[in-house]
Amino acid sequence: MTIIDEIKSGKVPSILNEISKKEGRSIDYLVKGLLDGTIVIPKNNNHVSLKNPMGIGKGLKIKVNANIGTSFGYDDFEYELEKYRTSRKYGADSVMFLSTWGDLDFQRKELLTISDIPVGTVPIYDAAVVAYKENRNVVDFSEKDFLKIFEKHAKQGVDFVTLHVSITKDIVKKLKKSNRIMKIVSRGGSIIAGWIIKNGFENPFYRYFDEVLDIAREYDVTLSLGDSLRPGNLFDSLDRLQLEEWFIFEELVEKARSKNVQVILEGPGHVPIDQIESTVELMKKYGKNAPVFLLGPIVLDVAPGYDHITSSIGSAIAAKSGADFICYVTPSEHLSLPSVEDVKLGVISSKIAAMAVDFSRGKFIEENYKVAISRKTLNFENIKKVVLDKEIVDKYLKNRPFHGKGCSMCGPFCSLKIVEEYLKE
Amino acid sequence: MTIIDEIKSGKVPSILNEISKKEGRSIDYLVKGLLDGTIVIPKNNNHVSLKNPMGIGKGLKIKVNANIGTSFGYDDFEYELEKYRTSRKYGADSVMFLSTWGDLDFQRKELLTISDIPVGTVPIYDAAVVAYKENRNVVDFSEKDFLKIFEKHAKQGVDFVTLHVSITKDIVKKLKKSNRIMKIVSRGGSIIAGWIIKNGFENPFYRYFDEVLDIAREYDVTLSLGDSLRPGNLFDSLDRLQLEEWFIFEELVEKARSKNVQVILEGPGHVPIDQIESTVELMKKYGKNAPVFLLGPIVLDVAPGYDHITSSIGSAIAAKSGADFICYVTPSEHLSLPSVEDVKLGVISSKIAAMAVDFSRGKFIEENYKVAISRKTLNFENIKKVVLDKEIVDKYLKNRPFHGKGCSMCGPFCSLKIVEEYLKE
Repeated sequence: MTIIDEIKSGKVPSILNEISKKEGRSIDYLVKGLLDGTIVIPKNNNHVSLKNPMGIGKGLKIKVNANIGTSFGYDDFEYELEKYRTSRKYGADSVMFLSTWGDLDFQRKELLTISDIPVGTVPIYDAAVVAYKENRNVVDFSEKDFLKIFEKHAKQGVDFVTLHVSITKDIVKKLKKSNRIMKIVSRGGSIIAGWIIKNGFENPFYRYFDEVLDIAREYDVTLSLGDSLRPGNLFDSLDRLQLEEWFIFEELVEKARSKNVQVILEGPGHVPIDQIESTVELMKKYGKNAPVFLLGPIVLDVAPGYDHITSSIGSAIAAKSGADFICYVTPSEHLSLPSVEDVKLGVISSKIAAMAVDFSRGKFIEENYKVAISRKTLNFENIKKVVLDKEIVDKYLKNRPFHGKGCSMCGPFCSLKIVEEYLKE
Repeated sequence: MTIIDEIKSGKVPSILNEISKKEGRSIDYLVKGLLDGTIVIPKNNNHVSLKNPMGIGKGLKIKVNANIGTSFGYDDFEYELEKYRTSRKYGADSVMFLSTWGDLDFQRKELLTISDIPVGTVPIYDAAVVAYKENRNVVDFSEKDFLKIFEKHAKQGVDFVTLHVSITKDIVKKLKKSNRIMKIVSRGGSIIAGWIIKNGFENPFYRYFDEVLDIAREYDVTLSLGDSLRPGNLFDSLDRLQLEEWFIFEELVEKARSKNVQVILEGPGHVPIDQIESTVELMKKYGKNAPVFLLGPIVLDVAPGYDHITSSIGSAIAAKSGADFICYVTPSEHLSLPSVEDVKLGVISSKIAAMAVDFSRGKFIEENYKVAISRKTLNFENIKKVVLDKEIVDKYLKNRPFHGKGCSMCGPFCSLKIVEEYLKE
């Protein structure tokens, strides 16, 4: 039974009280949004430790997701849990578990036991990892594996899953003939496209989408429709193939809603700064106003090592244009598996984008006001009470101190001190 | 004689060839922009070492300025020169010399000898520093000092100066009675406001603006009209006082243009993300479309330590809305005098914002294209040839390497490798 089923049966699920309190929106508002699909609350009925759920969508605060997970050669799961804790500390609203090495089942269960925020996964990774470990090709697994793996994740308590449903056999055919620079940069999308080409069958997530929905409904797993064809560079943005996938989103969203399954849409990626607004608008149009979950977007390709910044610009403009949920990008994107420090920078950069837009919508007013009035009196102790990262404030104040009131930037020539002397009220 | 004088006398100053080449715009286009004031080329006739001039304004690439300079307790000028070199290395188009400690005359001359890019200053700082060194109050100097100091800077070869002309006696009176949270956060603005209150006279830069223009014209110094009342927090943005100062910009721009003196306008500061567009539009309106030079803007106050990011979001949106020239903000803003590393982060963050907007206007296409096609084949060596920071790419690749083709983020599950196998053209 899903939260939509519950509401339609006349109940008010208790989780709504918590979301209502967090968001400052009425229960009625949330119910309306959940029913028309503009709001989702990812929460698997089996995710017992989920004490801090999130609502995503229209009128709610912009949410931030952090990715964690092992990779080939980097399978220290304890270190990945450290990333989880870091993400949590700096304000991530959810975490996606994207491990591709080690004992994936163990790791997933462990994270679901620990995590009090929603956990997302990409089930198809499991199939590829098993195939690789058994010395088969990464796309060498059976049609049955698609649903079996998804069902396992659902049963274990995963709150939302990325399923690359919309990369159909027909689209793969067009893709082969297309002249886009980077055909697929979605890991899950490339695995399924490879599988389709190797086996000659239709994408099982698409072919058996009714069964997918039945599983999702049983556990209340929110579906995050993966965009296999998200552009991997600025030049591929908004090409026909990307749009074709969105056209399929339209039918999938309608089917999911008809079965009371919650659904959100994943989006790019790499987008020139003047195409972000259209990207979000088109996704909202074809996705029937389902919440939009963007990876970045990255607005410049020549800054590897700084993609937390290229994407925080993109996220801010996207959120301003209606995006609801931001997947962080770390500075190590395109270069290596992130470190804990990279994860911290990724989360903070995304939070900045999210909160800047939220502020313009009347949220986080108190926190920003406290900084403003505390800066006026150069009260750094009060400032530290509400900032995103207290430690860095201390670091700067200690590394280059000014031995007097104020900081070493202006020293005795601080405008606030001059104002205090001559313009005091 | 200014560049405008030259053009009006029928000459084509040779500097236009260089700017034309750099910008990919015709000489005629530049001449038209210079004559109607939508383009400026800051270049003091006495700045002999200026080999890399910049054009700022309509149709040209967005420019980035970095600030350097000593402060009380931090008067190692060699270290500040290291900041200059770092700014230059990462692509700053100009540098403002903002020293407030040590031998300012020596430092300024030294920088002007070294710098091949335009140098800006804030002359009024000198008066405050001298007063403080002589154990007087920082606003304790004479009316004559205003023009004398500006003339000295002009003669030494400074290419553009921030003059806080628009903070008039009348505005200071209103400011005293206003309820803005942080009355003045502009260092120069606060010194002049304090001076006005202490002495009871009109702002000499305003009162003797004709003389200011005569000096500027003699050496061809571009005037950057300082906005003393730029908001210092999100709540003070677009208040009446800020607008009153812009109303004065209007008359100053007209006067400057009538004397063939180049002029640009300085803007905020701290601006909520939904007010950036109006801010730039209003500045363009009241500033008669003179180029707009923004400090940031910062879009969130709760992220000290990350203001290179809060401001890179603001800069990108501002540039998209028409801002022409971005003053970098470093992570240490509000906390301490920046280190060389902070300067690097500040410049790169601003460059990202500038280039992202420029890309959407057809610039930096080749560089971004090279990254796109090199990523497709996982050719990191080629990527490094065009990125903003090669060292950081190496750092990430070496710290967490993948011993095969690709990087440690996806390892054997790299979408590009799967695509290469199954979707090759």
